[in-house]
Amino acid sequence: MSHAMDVEALTAFLARDFGQVAEDFRVEAVTAEGLRLRLKVQERHLRPGGTVSGPAMFGLADVAVYLAILSRIGPVALAVTTGCAMDFMRKPAAGRDLYAEVRLLKLGRSLAVADALIFSEGVTEPVARANMTYSIPPAR
Amino acid sequence: MSHAMDVEALTAFLARDFGQVAEDFRVEAVTAEGLRLRLKVQERHLRPGGTVSGPAMFGLADVAVYLAILSRIGPVALAVTTGCAMDFMRKPAAGRDLYAEVRLLKLGRSLAVADALIFSEGVTEPVARANMTYSIPPAR
Amino acid sequence: MSHAMDVEALTAFLARDFGQVAEDFRVEAVTAEGLRLRLKVQERHLRPGGTVSGPAMFGLADVAVYLAILSRIGPVALAVTTGCAMDFMRKPAAGRDLYAEVRLLKLGRSLAVADALIFSEGVTEPVARANMTYSIPPAR
Amino acid sequence: MSHAMDVEALTAFLARDFGQVAEDFRVEAVTAEGLRLRLKVQERHLRPGGTVSGPAMFGLADVAVYLAILSRIGPVALAVTTGCAMDFMRKPAAGRDLYAEVRLLKLGRSLAVADALIFSEGVTEPVARANMTYSIPPAR
Repeated sequence: MSHAMDVEALTAFLARDFGQVAEDFRVEAVTAEGLRLRLKVQERHLRPGGTVSGPAMFGLADVAVYLAILSRIGPVALAVTTGCAMDFMRKPAAGRDLYAEVRLLKLGRSLAVADALIFSEGVTEPVARANMTYSIPPAR
Repeated sequence: MSHAMDVEALTAFLARDFGQVAEDFRVEAVTAEGLRLRLKVQERHLRPGGTVSGPAMFGLADVAVYLAILSRIGPVALAVTTGCAMDFMRKPAAGRDLYAEVRLLKLGRSLAVADALIFSEGVTEPVARANMTYSIPPAR
Repeated sequence: MSHAMDVEALTAFLARDFGQVAEDFRVEAVTAEGLRLRLKVQERHLRPGGTVSGPAMFGLADVAVYLAILSRIGPVALAVTTGCAMDFMRKPAAGRDLYAEVRLLKLGRSLAVADALIFSEGVTEPVARANMTYSIPPAR
Repeated sequence: MSHAMDVEALTAFLARDFGQVAEDFRVEAVTAEGLRLRLKVQERHLRPGGTVSGPAMFGLADVAVYLAILSRIGPVALAVTTGCAMDFMRKPAAGRDLYAEVRLLKLGRSLAVADALIFSEGVTEPVARANMTYSIPPAR
């Protein structure tokens, strides 16, 4: 697939349209398969015990897939998540950022499907996996 | 199933062990099927456009199922989410709280399974559905 | 929701369009929430050890949700399954039929969402749960 | 991960313990990431219109992940599927076999997690994706 938005364009989009969460994330790379997004883990992402919370990991996967879609089709702000399934497999390493590695599996006219593996920085085995489906509005 | 913790005990548990998010939620009822939990929707739960964010709904389902499990087995703080699947079906109504209605489907020695429907207050049709699996630590 | 097809019409549809699997199933009832479908368990549905196989349970949930949709919108043969998530919670009771109890959660113009609980006949606790999403073709 | 069973051993296991479905499948390779399994598509796997049925694809993913686990831990006949989530993305190509490409993501003492992409032979884009969780019995 060709690319409609690069790291710089996606970063600007995130800052403008998702100001509230933009500072949590850093777009690391638009990849051949999808995109890599970092969650800059902070106090508010943690659960008691110091592990990254489920909602924070969900948010990472959700934003990562969203940006991966936009990297191919451009700034369609109205794409909406219709479904997700996640497996939480290992405890994230303490004090490290997480990143999501997205694979776009289908980018149809009205529906996109992708999966993401979530890693603690510097650790080989994934912390979680997610698959997400997005509905893409007709007028584009 | 018999109940090990009531609304008051669950509320106290939430305040003590999940201080960071406790103020977002209100335990409405321990029900025959599971539990009902309210998300007191605030600015930080919203996405651009004013809709409740996916991570906020994930968090609501996750905490609701967690508390439903505790209502039956008591304060096992170490139960961990191992999987979830959600369908996002309708846009939440603006300016209204959400609540989750949990059904406990299995409460085994090591694994619990539940589903939850998420509603906007005062609206009949559900906004989202979730199923969650939890691993329960052996020593209890 | 009003009903477009009753038990008799759904049974005839199944026999005509799904001849290969029609004999496995019996439409028990069109319900207020959705539909109840029986899987007449036979040798070919079993795994070693005598338990009903995963694919047979998947098939039961899939056909049950499909028929529940048709019961509301009429014989749209081209609706296709786009996603499913299942939890297998208990071993089905030996030598008993299974049935699926469907709840239609969303029936939109282009997308339907439902869940189903699967039971062994005569047993209170569910064997499995499934949620399914269907894409409905535009021309209807 | 090291390998406990190779293609030959897995094929023999399948024939002995899953006689009923063994002839549907061919173990193509034990891979670095998991395993590749072929579904030899036949009349009984098809839906009206000639497409491979959902249950047949579920069965392919389920058996593929099961064999991938056995390839690492040996013939543990009692591992059971506890959960799955699938996205059906494209119509399988008519008259072609399907194969599943498994990635083992976690192989713990009691729980295994894997995903699988399903392809029509000779077609680059995947037909479906699945993730499966398996419970592994304690005594091994």
